[in-house]
Amino acid sequence: MTRLKPITISLMLALTFCFSNVFAQPSERDNYEGASPKYIFYFIGDGMGLSQANTAEAYLGAINNSNGIKKLKLNTLPKQGFYTTYATDRFITGSAAAGTALSTGVKTSISTVGMDAKRQKPLQTIAEMARDKGYKVGIVTSVSLDHATPASFYAHQPTRSMYYNISLDLSKSGFNYFAGGGIKHPEGDGKVDSKNIMANFGMGEDVDLKDKLPNSIELAKKRGYEFVNSVKEFNKLKKGDDKVICIAPKLVGGKSLPYFIDQNGKTDISLAEFTEKGIELLNNKNGFFMMVEGGKIDWACHANDAATVIQEVIQFDNAVSVALDFYKKHPDETLILVAGDHETGGMALGFSGSHYHSDFAILQHQNLSYESFSNLISDYKKNNIRNYKVEDGLALVKKHFGLGDAEKGLELSEFEMQQLKTAFDKSMNYNKKMKKDDQFYLLYGSYDPFTTTACHILSQKAGIGWTSFSHTAAPIPIRSIGVGADLFTGFFDNTDVPKSLMKLIENK
Amino acid sequence: MTRLKPITISLMLALTFCFSNVFAQPSERDNYEGASPKYIFYFIGDGMGLSQANTAEAYLGAINNSNGIKKLKLNTLPKQGFYTTYATDRFITGSAAAGTALSTGVKTSISTVGMDAKRQKPLQTIAEMARDKGYKVGIVTSVSLDHATPASFYAHQPTRSMYYNISLDLSKSGFNYFAGGGIKHPEGDGKVDSKNIMANFGMGEDVDLKDKLPNSIELAKKRGYEFVNSVKEFNKLKKGDDKVICIAPKLVGGKSLPYFIDQNGKTDISLAEFTEKGIELLNNKNGFFMMVEGGKIDWACHANDAATVIQEVIQFDNAVSVALDFYKKHPDETLILVAGDHETGGMALGFSGSHYHSDFAILQHQNLSYESFSNLISDYKKNNIRNYKVEDGLALVKKHFGLGDAEKGLELSEFEMQQLKTAFDKSMNYNKKMKKDDQFYLLYGSYDPFTTTACHILSQKAGIGWTSFSHTAAPIPIRSIGVGADLFTGFFDNTDVPKSLMKLIENK
Repeated sequence: MTRLKPITISLMLALTFCFSNVFAQPSERDNYEGASPKYIFYFIGDGMGLSQANTAEAYLGAINNSNGIKKLKLNTLPKQGFYTTYATDRFITGSAAAGTALSTGVKTSISTVGMDAKRQKPLQTIAEMARDKGYKVGIVTSVSLDHATPASFYAHQPTRSMYYNISLDLSKSGFNYFAGGGIKHPEGDGKVDSKNIMANFGMGEDVDLKDKLPNSIELAKKRGYEFVNSVKEFNKLKKGDDKVICIAPKLVGGKSLPYFIDQNGKTDISLAEFTEKGIELLNNKNGFFMMVEGGKIDWACHANDAATVIQEVIQFDNAVSVALDFYKKHPDETLILVAGDHETGGMALGFSGSHYHSDFAILQHQNLSYESFSNLISDYKKNNIRNYKVEDGLALVKKHFGLGDAEKGLELSEFEMQQLKTAFDKSMNYNKKMKKDDQFYLLYGSYDPFTTTACHILSQKAGIGWTSFSHTAAPIPIRSIGVGADLFTGFFDNTDVPKSLMKLIENK
Repeated sequence: MTRLKPITISLMLALTFCFSNVFAQPSERDNYEGASPKYIFYFIGDGMGLSQANTAEAYLGAINNSNGIKKLKLNTLPKQGFYTTYATDRFITGSAAAGTALSTGVKTSISTVGMDAKRQKPLQTIAEMARDKGYKVGIVTSVSLDHATPASFYAHQPTRSMYYNISLDLSKSGFNYFAGGGIKHPEGDGKVDSKNIMANFGMGEDVDLKDKLPNSIELAKKRGYEFVNSVKEFNKLKKGDDKVICIAPKLVGGKSLPYFIDQNGKTDISLAEFTEKGIELLNNKNGFFMMVEGGKIDWACHANDAATVIQEVIQFDNAVSVALDFYKKHPDETLILVAGDHETGGMALGFSGSHYHSDFAILQHQNLSYESFSNLISDYKKNNIRNYKVEDGLALVKKHFGLGDAEKGLELSEFEMQQLKTAFDKSMNYNKKMKKDDQFYLLYGSYDPFTTTACHILSQKAGIGWTSFSHTAAPIPIRSIGVGADLFTGFFDNTDVPKSLMKLIENK
């Protein structure tokens, strides 16, 4: 890689910013003539379809001894719409294509971040437009800051896996507040596209790529960002602090915030607190735009882990609640959207084996996530290789899922017991070289067999079914309240969400 | 049973009409001050959740070579809401409890029709209120006229299985137009509640129960109803004809209209035609209220038969289309609601075995319903008892589902082939006395094993998963357009739908 002259960089940037603004045919959405919202909250539950939110509500109802639901805050928003999510090259979308559709108003191809389907042209995002209109901009997530959904609001890269390039785009955005998980590969991830790398640097930036790639965190600091990485520093942040990147002190897999279910009720900094801090830092006379992602709803759904999903949805809803409190103070200036990028898991509030029966309260007996339980099983396997006992496995599911515990009403049927024993054997004997046949995948996906079986059996006893370990193409609900909320009712496409948002702020 | 004196009947009726009007806490729905809609269409897709409609749209998109969807008419309605569906005694509702919630605004218990949860008090329905306000009233369905959903709009009976009593209530309602399937047990079904039977007769009606029960069809005629049972008579019906009961000439299981997929594209009278005729007969200066049910979406979902579901949804949508045409002529006087009573099957647009892949167009290769295919298998079994060949079964699924037909891209994997062979053996050897274990039910529900396996494999290859043979508790979308449609957006409860409707017409 060679050092490029500022003039070349400048030309590349000019080309880069020739955005394609493809708008759909005229509709009632084009007729908006009201005021622009001053404060915009754009919540995205990753993997959150209709069922994920409703399962949490059914669970909250059940543990409060109600036959009905206890409504989430997000479902108190008065306007409701739905949208399709398909990508240009696949009916079932992914987080990058869906994120890009939700951020730019343009459908793109699977894995593409903030660029067109052919991965040639960067696309303007609603967050960039808001920035250019004078709003302060915040990006909050429970997963890493360079993950597909948040990246779709500030990055323009051919694939979501170019985490390093994405992290360079992050600080180039000039957005005011980033908060949540970490940065996956600040020193490079081996996936840098040498042809495009210079586009990640700003005009006049003195970047020498001859020796090695600059550390993206160090570069962000050079670009004026403050890094905050402890609860103490976080608490010190106050109104007026600008260009801040807050990373939760404790990160787990994928540099994400830990699952709430694994925290014994004590989070270091919750998604709601990151959101609250965002309001404090971003609030100014020109208003703000804040995107908040509940990123691990999706991950838990991939693993078909209902109890973990529910807690992640509740954490996400707590963040929505913070925005609703703000809305109550500024009802005539605020717009809140609560959306999702796609559904994950084909989660349903009914399972063939439980017929018409539901018992959501039993999900209380699960006390850790599929991820933590998999780690337990993996440790057990290491320590007991060729000497494992199925009784040990059964003791672990009893301890962590309540399965087999008659006092909890969770007796196992003969069939369930057999499923667990078979899965435990598979977990102990499985290795990555083994060929997994079709049936193996149907039962366990790419997860630890014993963990998945435990998650499935607890789900099924609760009356929850799953059809997939992947995303589904279910239309996604969007709830809204406030200035311009009427534009988000009816049945439309995911690209219509940012198109409507752009319409709302274009005359600001 | 003895003959009761008119005075006694009169007293019973007086008691019967002490309706309990339990309204929820005040909300924005109570503030409606606009005009009452003159024309009200209330469409209910039985078993139709979000996925059923969207699967039809994905299928229509796919057969038109689009990666996206082709929107159903029902999803062009501009307002969108959602509601919970739980019954008083079960989180997963049934059609009677859901129908009663949607007709009366009061939650009731499973199987109860138009009465409170304790089955003591009849509840006023929106259709009865509309009648009393001077609207003409129509009830249209693709299943029998005395089935739970339509019955919920005119009948008041402790259980949905009291078909005879329900059919007596039908003609007592005085509604102007009934159309669709048949009347299941006009001569009695052995489930008459002798204590309550007299309440089914009108004041002054000279009914002698000493010898035998009156035929409910003959009674309806006495009460002034005209019975129409052929295409010719149906076509002759014209504006001005009143108190008409139209029953489709050809009925199948449960006295319902045949599945569209079994009709080779030729229906005698379609749901849309019944709806169109309803408009012609009901239209008058005082307006009308018409409930139209797509009743067999549910039945096909119970059987996890995606191709049949899609065609039933399209038939239902064609009926909605008729109402939309009417709306275009009377936009300032019409309200259209398109709702569902509950979701059935846990249908999802994604299946673990097909990962992120979808191929809805292959559902074209199925050329009959699960019901007709089960009949074929049953006939084969009778004719080949103890002499069946698995090759014959495979030839039948190839012919009717395309499964195993390489030219259609429907090669069978080893695992799929094994599933079919096993299921065929079960179908041939199964008898009602056999104990079905848990795994048997998970695989086949209470359906013919071979048929269910064929439906499942075709669904799965298309990228459709199912979690249940029963209903689920998924919240149900409601779409609306026209006068008062704003009252049906947001997230609410099924009982709020008729409450809002009542609010809309109470000052008429």
